[in-house]
Amino acid sequence: MTPVPIGIAGASGYAGQELIRLAARHPFIRVTTAMGSGSADGARTLPALSGVWDGAITPLSIDRLVAETQAVFMTLPDEVAAEVGPALVSRGVRVFDLAGTFRLRDPALRRRWYPATPDLDTPAVYGLTEYYRQALAEARLVACPGCYPTATLLALRPLVDADLLDGDIIIDAKSGISGAGKKPTERTHFSECHGNVAAYGVLGHRHGAEIEQELRQAVTFTPHLVPLDRGLLATIYVRMRPDVDDQTIASTFAQAYDTEPFVRVRGDALPEIKHVTHTNFCDVGWRFDRTSRRLVLVSCLDNLVKGAAGQALQNLNVAFGWPETTGLL
Amino acid sequence: MTPVPIGIAGASGYAGQELIRLAARHPFIRVTTAMGSGSADGARTLPALSGVWDGAITPLSIDRLVAETQAVFMTLPDEVAAEVGPALVSRGVRVFDLAGTFRLRDPALRRRWYPATPDLDTPAVYGLTEYYRQALAEARLVACPGCYPTATLLALRPLVDADLLDGDIIIDAKSGISGAGKKPTERTHFSECHGNVAAYGVLGHRHGAEIEQELRQAVTFTPHLVPLDRGLLATIYVRMRPDVDDQTIASTFAQAYDTEPFVRVRGDALPEIKHVTHTNFCDVGWRFDRTSRRLVLVSCLDNLVKGAAGQALQNLNVAFGWPETTGLL
Amino acid sequence: MTPVPIGIAGASGYAGQELIRLAARHPFIRVTTAMGSGSADGARTLPALSGVWDGAITPLSIDRLVAETQAVFMTLPDEVAAEVGPALVSRGVRVFDLAGTFRLRDPALRRRWYPATPDLDTPAVYGLTEYYRQALAEARLVACPGCYPTATLLALRPLVDADLLDGDIIIDAKSGISGAGKKPTERTHFSECHGNVAAYGVLGHRHGAEIEQELRQAVTFTPHLVPLDRGLLATIYVRMRPDVDDQTIASTFAQAYDTEPFVRVRGDALPEIKHVTHTNFCDVGWRFDRTSRRLVLVSCLDNLVKGAAGQALQNLNVAFGWPETTGLL
Amino acid sequence: MTPVPIGIAGASGYAGQELIRLAARHPFIRVTTAMGSGSADGARTLPALSGVWDGAITPLSIDRLVAETQAVFMTLPDEVAAEVGPALVSRGVRVFDLAGTFRLRDPALRRRWYPATPDLDTPAVYGLTEYYRQALAEARLVACPGCYPTATLLALRPLVDADLLDGDIIIDAKSGISGAGKKPTERTHFSECHGNVAAYGVLGHRHGAEIEQELRQAVTFTPHLVPLDRGLLATIYVRMRPDVDDQTIASTFAQAYDTEPFVRVRGDALPEIKHVTHTNFCDVGWRFDRTSRRLVLVSCLDNLVKGAAGQALQNLNVAFGWPETTGLL
Repeated sequence: MTPVPIGIAGASGYAGQELIRLAARHPFIRVTTAMGSGSADGARTLPALSGVWDGAITPLSIDRLVAETQAVFMTLPDEVAAEVGPALVSRGVRVFDLAGTFRLRDPALRRRWYPATPDLDTPAVYGLTEYYRQALAEARLVACPGCYPTATLLALRPLVDADLLDGDIIIDAKSGISGAGKKPTERTHFSECHGNVAAYGVLGHRHGAEIEQELRQAVTFTPHLVPLDRGLLATIYVRMRPDVDDQTIASTFAQAYDTEPFVRVRGDALPEIKHVTHTNFCDVGWRFDRTSRRLVLVSCLDNLVKGAAGQALQNLNVAFGWPETTGLL
Repeated sequence: MTPVPIGIAGASGYAGQELIRLAARHPFIRVTTAMGSGSADGARTLPALSGVWDGAITPLSIDRLVAETQAVFMTLPDEVAAEVGPALVSRGVRVFDLAGTFRLRDPALRRRWYPATPDLDTPAVYGLTEYYRQALAEARLVACPGCYPTATLLALRPLVDADLLDGDIIIDAKSGISGAGKKPTERTHFSECHGNVAAYGVLGHRHGAEIEQELRQAVTFTPHLVPLDRGLLATIYVRMRPDVDDQTIASTFAQAYDTEPFVRVRGDALPEIKHVTHTNFCDVGWRFDRTSRRLVLVSCLDNLVKGAAGQALQNLNVAFGWPETTGLL
Repeated sequence: MTPVPIGIAGASGYAGQELIRLAARHPFIRVTTAMGSGSADGARTLPALSGVWDGAITPLSIDRLVAETQAVFMTLPDEVAAEVGPALVSRGVRVFDLAGTFRLRDPALRRRWYPATPDLDTPAVYGLTEYYRQALAEARLVACPGCYPTATLLALRPLVDADLLDGDIIIDAKSGISGAGKKPTERTHFSECHGNVAAYGVLGHRHGAEIEQELRQAVTFTPHLVPLDRGLLATIYVRMRPDVDDQTIASTFAQAYDTEPFVRVRGDALPEIKHVTHTNFCDVGWRFDRTSRRLVLVSCLDNLVKGAAGQALQNLNVAFGWPETTGLL
Repeated sequence: MTPVPIGIAGASGYAGQELIRLAARHPFIRVTTAMGSGSADGARTLPALSGVWDGAITPLSIDRLVAETQAVFMTLPDEVAAEVGPALVSRGVRVFDLAGTFRLRDPALRRRWYPATPDLDTPAVYGLTEYYRQALAEARLVACPGCYPTATLLALRPLVDADLLDGDIIIDAKSGISGAGKKPTERTHFSECHGNVAAYGVLGHRHGAEIEQELRQAVTFTPHLVPLDRGLLATIYVRMRPDVDDQTIASTFAQAYDTEPFVRVRGDALPEIKHVTHTNFCDVGWRFDRTSRRLVLVSCLDNLVKGAAGQALQNLNVAFGWPETTGLL
């Protein structure tokens, strides 16, 4: 089989590099075209990747992406993605967007959190693979979820779908710094992050809106930066309905994920970031106190893999009808 | 003035070393006696401290502590502290305990979480300085709070005292690894912690009992280890009574802490661990959403200073009638 | 083709886990048997590996390794390896040892640095793949080089072989903490390593003897522990013969490595640890000052891959006649 | 005694903040004036310092520094320091410069490495306190040494002064990232530094020229960035003259430093970064092999204290005739 030609728009960022790395191992695709995030951005070398993928990163060009590829991963700034994505789709290229641009369905919310995003004719499919497989098969434009929503939703969707929750949902998430992107800022300067933990976007982070959209319920979401590079751990606090016991919770998760290749249900062996880095796994564990009905969930993933590049590739596998784990185990 | 002779029992651990470092700068005390945590434990060199404090660490001896000191800081294993503390008090030495042994007042709780602790005749004073000054002045035995309770209580006590809270209290805390002590374990092995975040003691950490004792209210408390050495950040989720607005919260904290030298009220400039390491400050900030009545508090301190050695010294200052900031600014 | 059954003796350490991870991706082998490092050591779970390799780690048993496998990777304590290795070889199993036991050829040196090692009848092949391919094809017992020697020798062998050096060789190496193994010690305790750099084994590290054996020349070798998990960078100081110029150096390295899949010659684009972690690459770069004839070489690898598990697998590929990069790109 | 009014020009950088922190503990000085590094740079808050020093950082103004202060610490970009320094001196203010501008005495070298620096009328005193005390007493302009030269020179000067060395000097230094300053760059981005070690400025770092000036001898100097915030360790390789033995080395260091308050001679107990961070100590240790005459020195300091702010304050103490350790122990 001739490999499907793939483009990466925004290839020099961390998710872009991870995509190149993963794609190099994938037997059915070939990265023919890797571009920077602007028409003047290119020529960057990726020394870590030499010997793995030795192509050049060239300036962003929609024409070349259309001419050379069948599908494009986009890790572009939101306002660029908002323009490039629909243009590619309209010219027949399937798009897997890793930015936030197309994730929110409600136009009002979208305008609030992603002001640059146009009103779309082609609706995007939300690329949480485990819950949108059917739609992904036909999707022209896939809005891959953020790293925080992926970890959170994989932990909460089984309980919400089974209507087991009673009351508030509180999500306290800790993310490695690569989640903040490659652009040097004071916030991501080594000396500011080393030995530090900081909450940010408290009561106002746009991933909260994305989580609420998928849960159809308000949540309190607080992200933190912790001093590590890759990985994300979400601690989630909920209360269960009075009749729920340990067995209900365990069987709900078993039913949801026993056949899923990338969700590892841990039960009371709580997951840790180290278990999932450099993999496409999301690990979910929990502890439950029957008396207070308090459930504490812990969910972990690598923000650059299951939280970005890996899940995008998983979506591509579904969209092209290949085994979902291709290139990912 | 002749400096007061001070002993440190358990001087080779992290809190012990921090005590020596702080005591060396304190004008009214002198560490005459530094001991290991057992009668066979001594002779350890502290290369970081040479030139600052050049004494030797000798084996643990109650007799020598009684003979040579007026007050002793104890950072001993709980079961050793349970024996040494009352012995010292009964022989006229004032004791500032940094272990958990004497913190819980309820004998049943104490037996559950600190099984080695005897039933005490001399009740201990809980050494959260800002709230127990009067009792500290006369105290013979001070049970200095743990690092998690200190950060949590300084954030919550003003709101609880003013009866502003409505419903659950959830405390999600992130601590540096030095909080786990100096003993090498798999949990604290560098390669296990680096690049990792792990929750532990979920729904069953004894600091939860300590927090509940001081708040007179149940809480959900989840500690995490994050990959840094010193420092602790607690993110606390509460809901406010319907009539509470931003102004109420701000004035409640202002009233509680405006004259406190070691609690810095940050308001919506959220504190970060970097702001407090190597200081005796506890910084408290928050964000409030009037509509949902959700308040998110962030509280930070250095677990070895305000969470251990610094607060112990602050308590000593109060107990001996010296200005509370002596040696701590 | 039926996969070759492979055993791993010492599977719960860091190199052992990396072997399992790499072997899981290798199309021609299957890990049938993973054992601890003692006959009472087993039953350890490897949560990071579930879904990748779900076997159990069982107690060490030579009989079972003989019965179940054709080749064994050993990452055992030296004195255990000294016993198990020859026993396996004598019963027809090919052995790839990652400990130091069999690396030194001179019996006197071996007794000095690895006192537990027996005098061997079957001589071991030194598994620096790039330089011992021919011997590896027939080898029954492969002594895979240490991480420090691998990084150092790949940088120096081309220059030594071409007789370009004049005078002292100084090797200043910086290693991640996983190189010190999984056993918790004070030296590898998180709080001791974080924010720290320490030299160790100065003028007396046994990897120095290994380097000298392969270069047939004395060296000054200083290893350091730096606060990261995986990766190793060696900075090497030599002086070149008077007639050597930039071109000589560049062409010497090009000739040595242009067809090597796992040595990336970087020239004056100096390698960094980040470029090689989680890969089997060793990157070599340099800067040369013609006037002083000083050459500074920088060599990097991942101590758990090219410095341990990856190179062992590379050796297995050669020994079994498979393409050398199988399972490693 | 009325405290001497002090200015800090460049107060928002890491060395500037450390100066404020140290000055706040110094009994004889008061920071009256803290300025940014440009006339438009000010108004920065320093949340870590509130309660310690609550002044405002104002835009850079020579007139105000002259009006308000008797001495100024400068941590300005080289080209700004080159202008501000002489202006302050000419108007009667004593200047302690922490930039590199005035360190090199040879005008040709100065023009090469610090092109912006003017030819000076008032020669600067090189502020390596231990070796320039006499000149410091009268100095109007003190060029405080860089962090790399301070660590290196304190280790080598005793041996060079006693003429014990034979042949090359090789300095392999490992520095925390704060040494690279506060300006966010790709090089100092957290995700680039974490898990990484990188050599830089190989065979061409301007601190090499500074070291050579003070040793009157060529050296090979290689700095590296290691993933920690504060601290610097230099490993130095020399060969001793044939008649030198262990005793000679030990007594040479003893003679040089036994009465020095800030140089701790460690002998074969090799120093580590952790021993010196947050102190003004420089620790020096070594290992010697009599047969090969190889001496390996290890020297450590905190790049922001003895390598910057602490040494500057130590110089101020000498210049003003105060006990040299004032505010520094």
